[in-house]
Amino acid sequence: MRRRIFEPEHEMFRDTVRKWAEAEVYPRSAEFRRAGMVARDVWASAGRQGFLAMYADPAYGGLGLDDFRFDMVLIEELAARENGLYIPLHNRIVGPYLHRFGSDAQKRQHLPGVVSGDTVLAIAMTEPDIGSDLAGMRTRAEDRGDHWLLNGSKTYISNGILAGLVIVAARTGTGRHDIGLFLVPEGTAGFTRGRRLEKIGLHSQDTAELHFENVKLPKSAVLGEPAGGFRMMMQNLAEERLVGSNQFIAHAQRAFDITLDYILERKAFGQTIGSFQNSRFQMAALKTKIDAGWAFVDHCAREHLEGALTADLAAQAKLLCSEIEGEVVDACLQLHGGAGFMEEYEIGRMYCSARVSRIYAGTSEIMKEIIGRKLGLGDRG
Amino acid sequence: MRRRIFEPEHEMFRDTVRKWAEAEVYPRSAEFRRAGMVARDVWASAGRQGFLAMYADPAYGGLGLDDFRFDMVLIEELAARENGLYIPLHNRIVGPYLHRFGSDAQKRQHLPGVVSGDTVLAIAMTEPDIGSDLAGMRTRAEDRGDHWLLNGSKTYISNGILAGLVIVAARTGTGRHDIGLFLVPEGTAGFTRGRRLEKIGLHSQDTAELHFENVKLPKSAVLGEPAGGFRMMMQNLAEERLVGSNQFIAHAQRAFDITLDYILERKAFGQTIGSFQNSRFQMAALKTKIDAGWAFVDHCAREHLEGALTADLAAQAKLLCSEIEGEVVDACLQLHGGAGFMEEYEIGRMYCSARVSRIYAGTSEIMKEIIGRKLGLGDRG
Amino acid sequence: MRRRIFEPEHEMFRDTVRKWAEAEVYPRSAEFRRAGMVARDVWASAGRQGFLAMYADPAYGGLGLDDFRFDMVLIEELAARENGLYIPLHNRIVGPYLHRFGSDAQKRQHLPGVVSGDTVLAIAMTEPDIGSDLAGMRTRAEDRGDHWLLNGSKTYISNGILAGLVIVAARTGTGRHDIGLFLVPEGTAGFTRGRRLEKIGLHSQDTAELHFENVKLPKSAVLGEPAGGFRMMMQNLAEERLVGSNQFIAHAQRAFDITLDYILERKAFGQTIGSFQNSRFQMAALKTKIDAGWAFVDHCAREHLEGALTADLAAQAKLLCSEIEGEVVDACLQLHGGAGFMEEYEIGRMYCSARVSRIYAGTSEIMKEIIGRKLGLGDRG
Amino acid sequence: MRRRIFEPEHEMFRDTVRKWAEAEVYPRSAEFRRAGMVARDVWASAGRQGFLAMYADPAYGGLGLDDFRFDMVLIEELAARENGLYIPLHNRIVGPYLHRFGSDAQKRQHLPGVVSGDTVLAIAMTEPDIGSDLAGMRTRAEDRGDHWLLNGSKTYISNGILAGLVIVAARTGTGRHDIGLFLVPEGTAGFTRGRRLEKIGLHSQDTAELHFENVKLPKSAVLGEPAGGFRMMMQNLAEERLVGSNQFIAHAQRAFDITLDYILERKAFGQTIGSFQNSRFQMAALKTKIDAGWAFVDHCAREHLEGALTADLAAQAKLLCSEIEGEVVDACLQLHGGAGFMEEYEIGRMYCSARVSRIYAGTSEIMKEIIGRKLGLGDRG
Repeated sequence: MRRRIFEPEHEMFRDTVRKWAEAEVYPRSAEFRRAGMVARDVWASAGRQGFLAMYADPAYGGLGLDDFRFDMVLIEELAARENGLYIPLHNRIVGPYLHRFGSDAQKRQHLPGVVSGDTVLAIAMTEPDIGSDLAGMRTRAEDRGDHWLLNGSKTYISNGILAGLVIVAARTGTGRHDIGLFLVPEGTAGFTRGRRLEKIGLHSQDTAELHFENVKLPKSAVLGEPAGGFRMMMQNLAEERLVGSNQFIAHAQRAFDITLDYILERKAFGQTIGSFQNSRFQMAALKTKIDAGWAFVDHCAREHLEGALTADLAAQAKLLCSEIEGEVVDACLQLHGGAGFMEEYEIGRMYCSARVSRIYAGTSEIMKEIIGRKLGLGDRG
Repeated sequence: MRRRIFEPEHEMFRDTVRKWAEAEVYPRSAEFRRAGMVARDVWASAGRQGFLAMYADPAYGGLGLDDFRFDMVLIEELAARENGLYIPLHNRIVGPYLHRFGSDAQKRQHLPGVVSGDTVLAIAMTEPDIGSDLAGMRTRAEDRGDHWLLNGSKTYISNGILAGLVIVAARTGTGRHDIGLFLVPEGTAGFTRGRRLEKIGLHSQDTAELHFENVKLPKSAVLGEPAGGFRMMMQNLAEERLVGSNQFIAHAQRAFDITLDYILERKAFGQTIGSFQNSRFQMAALKTKIDAGWAFVDHCAREHLEGALTADLAAQAKLLCSEIEGEVVDACLQLHGGAGFMEEYEIGRMYCSARVSRIYAGTSEIMKEIIGRKLGLGDRG
Repeated sequence: MRRRIFEPEHEMFRDTVRKWAEAEVYPRSAEFRRAGMVARDVWASAGRQGFLAMYADPAYGGLGLDDFRFDMVLIEELAARENGLYIPLHNRIVGPYLHRFGSDAQKRQHLPGVVSGDTVLAIAMTEPDIGSDLAGMRTRAEDRGDHWLLNGSKTYISNGILAGLVIVAARTGTGRHDIGLFLVPEGTAGFTRGRRLEKIGLHSQDTAELHFENVKLPKSAVLGEPAGGFRMMMQNLAEERLVGSNQFIAHAQRAFDITLDYILERKAFGQTIGSFQNSRFQMAALKTKIDAGWAFVDHCAREHLEGALTADLAAQAKLLCSEIEGEVVDACLQLHGGAGFMEEYEIGRMYCSARVSRIYAGTSEIMKEIIGRKLGLGDRG
Repeated sequence: MRRRIFEPEHEMFRDTVRKWAEAEVYPRSAEFRRAGMVARDVWASAGRQGFLAMYADPAYGGLGLDDFRFDMVLIEELAARENGLYIPLHNRIVGPYLHRFGSDAQKRQHLPGVVSGDTVLAIAMTEPDIGSDLAGMRTRAEDRGDHWLLNGSKTYISNGILAGLVIVAARTGTGRHDIGLFLVPEGTAGFTRGRRLEKIGLHSQDTAELHFENVKLPKSAVLGEPAGGFRMMMQNLAEERLVGSNQFIAHAQRAFDITLDYILERKAFGQTIGSFQNSRFQMAALKTKIDAGWAFVDHCAREHLEGALTADLAAQAKLLCSEIEGEVVDACLQLHGGAGFMEEYEIGRMYCSARVSRIYAGTSEIMKEIIGRKLGLGDRG
């Protein structure tokens, strides 16, 4: 589908990103999967290219370029292979907390590393047993007058091992929404990483448990208001979900593209797989759904560029695109036949990795709650 | 979903159309269903409002306003009830043949009636036994020197009874694509209408068989080149499918809206139906699909406004939106419980009527053929 | 699929039923649809054949043959056309109330007519506004010493117009489950029928509102215990749902069979519709689902023959088979193309009629509640 | 669902198998996954228990017990965990070739090891590039007078590494169906194993490429007629697909059971996950589908016990049960939330492993071809 949202500068940027990824990222994909994470030198290279936190002010090493479409290009190009460099998490899911809510001192301290790639970012919200339910959070930061004392554990933290700086959500009061966000750099005493979690997919992205035991943090470690974390998270979540949507649909497109190549080439029963009517119909149906996903993502991106992306619209995008991704990778794997089950074929790895899309950043069920409640469909009535 | 494609003038026009429909069309819906067609005076009223063939040159009584978005407004407002005034068929599926390919004389003769609503339009392609397969067409127009002699039968012709002018596709030569389009006004000797076909839905739109037995037509009755009909039909089909898509998604939106009202109101087991989690999730999922449909339709409409709507993109829209409509009316009827099965509830009638959307103007299967072949997925390879 | 549940006597009975239906029922199908109900003489003919309430004791004119498989044969053969003689409602949904819970006097009075077909049966549970929620029932029978006084309204009553005897559920006390079942013959003073309800399908089966205004009933009009109706209904509901399941899957089989004939015959684009791979795959998938339905119905029937059919197993059957029917008629209509939308083709009428299967006798949602609660998945926990 | 097919002796056998598996197999599951195959001592233990090739004549060490239901018990119990001991492949997919078609000498040589577990079996049909299309087979066995000369390569061979005896399909003539089956024990000169293939699931079952380079086989190495392999394979395929179906539905049941436990226990947003209506409805729908699968499998097994299992019925079972398994593991993983994506949770591993079920032993598409062609829906017509 012809995209209508991009300008020539974005397409030029796309060429740059693609060439870089083909030279520096894709060839090392198997290495990263074995290591369970992307090598730090790739992050540094991305930083040198100016791909990281482009929105950061030049004073902090950034380009001062806050055009979401550049990040869309990064998302699409880096999601276009099962390669595992999830710049979007760094750039658009965690970075904005610092950029939007950080004090000048906090930005001065941390943003240069974020921009250069020396400091990979992570955000720690989820806890063992509570899942996405922030109201049940048990990690606690106590105000000890001259410092904060942080205690608790987090799990399922993406970039948990790699991160140089973790933004940690912790309860700061007794109110349901009294949650603060704390900047915890690696090396802080009492902050330890648990084991790297084995996942069924996303093998080149590390996921970990993090532990905080009597971690003393300076008073300046809190981002914005000590009880303002909930509000900040809600504000950023819409963008995070749009980022996810864009990534999911880019994955779907990638799965579609490699499958189209495969079935045009491979033969079965004396003809190419692609020449069967069933293959043609499957691919036609998939392409249609993917393009509907693109149209929706681009609609949401336009709204976002105008500052009008709502929580429920973002939830719709997340629901739609993760479902499309799931359906597409499943059907595309099937079109690969036995090869699809082999680890060496990209589609098999995509199939396993895609399974998390309907879960993280809020499950499909939570998305439906958000959308449904916006329609006035509450619990009782 | 906030639509981004419309300008203030379109929204003003929407108000006008809605008020007119609420005053002159909707109250008579049951009458039209019983009659099997919309009364002619409503067509005349639509003509007086300037709703018909707005693109026609002022010389022929039109407004010379060729902005597809005005027709989108008409489609959306008139599809927003199970009412049966299918102006789009007249305006955007048949009318453009005259507007684009008609000679000045042909336009002078016919367009004023088209604009005023005195002449309702129909197009006759489908034949008994051949369905959508134009290559099998048996209706034939022979060049008899000073006239054409037309023989054959057509079926499933929308507006077949009501039409004052029928554009008839007929074979003009021995080549596979030698098809001409002929203007046949009502009252022409040898042109008779068969029975009005009983359908399971769309009860206020007439569908009929038409017979042509030794119909003598003047040489001037042919539209464009005598063997150019195939090409003209192909050109118009993309627009026709976009019109359909817009209508289907507007139907889906209507079904959703009346269902939301219903479940917010009706109670079961001591609570409103809408307060069940299952209802909330269903509605959230439906809204998401409908909005994806809107985003896709608006994308296609923008392409169309620039003259860039391709056959395969239109086929994708038709496939997508008719499937969404089908899924939505089914789920919405279910949320109505027993009431949904009653003829008096709009959702039941919508359910039956919507079933044709995946069939007419090319079935979903034909859409998949078009899309799949564009991907290079042919029969053999 | 080869059915394993039937013995030779059932297959002989099947022949008898089929020949009778082909001679006396199917040819008059259009007549019945226009009339909105099946003619009484057909019921009498069925009675003469011994098809009605075969389980009734010979003392009441019956055959004393309580083998559910004979009713399965009737269900399957009479559901095998869109013809509208719903003997199962009479035989297996209402009749058993009399047979199982009736006193000798009640049976002596009513069963002979039930067996002969002179007295068509109906049962009246549903009320306006409350749907399937028996707890909200407002119809009330007051014990006035020497008689019961019945007041209230019922809706969506199948056979409501045709019925010679209606079993009416009415509140007899203040407890949530204090419901009694009352035998109300036609002609009883104060019992009137409302309008025949227009439905989107099942056009040869009448559905009506019934009104009871100060209806005086003898004390002997109550079936079993005056507060025992709820328990009796629960007992019969499992069988009712199995009957429905059998009917739904027989409908699905019929839709499949006529579609197979159609696509083996009809051509499109130079080949039979059935020779397209898409048609082949669709039909293969449908056949597989239908056969899974048959296997499940036969499993449940075996359990039922042993008196071991549970409420949740029956709910599973109802859910499964109504969903299969819905999917099959939809896909089969699509394979008919434009013809499928025409009233004259059986598949179009089946499509509309089938829509109620997921709703009546408990919606799919209620079935899921029953099954889920049996799994221990309650509201809170 | 209460199974109706088993007798008390099968249920006693089930207890034995379950206890054995819980003692000797399940605790070592992680070890087997790391090793990429089940340890040989487990096979020997199974042999000692009498679980292997029970149908083998006592003369060859077997029990002479050819009751498919005992293998059903083995299938169900060993599929009831993500553990990887695929006895069915040995017992019911490969073993019967020897049992049914082997000469007395061949049985005397090989069956004792098969029964004791010393000789694990594999069958080698699939070749690189040809997939399931036997007509394209390139491996060739030439009759060199006093020996056969075998050349070719096979891929995707389950038990390829572990197998002590491989039955190899090879072309023996120029006719399309001139295929012979050859017994090739490990250690035969020229027979080498390629790499163990990395798969996205089934990590405790080895899958490998096998190479045959100028392998000299005695004339006695051919099973049955040298050109009779095609016919033998066709005969065994129906049983193989029934075995698969049974396994798939047992997997689905296992996924359901562990998920039910999980959602009854785990809380989210202050209530157990199982208490949400959405969870209840999901589980109800899944249980219904699984039980339909059981009913169908048991129907097919009864047919098989009578020697009446047809190729198309088995294809239906395979299609149905693999689709149900796929849907169930997907939905069950979703109900696990983030935990479902973790390798340590059984549901995540089941999700990845299950993906092959719709592919191996003939893809869903091939099943539809078989079923559809049986309906008379061929390529042209």
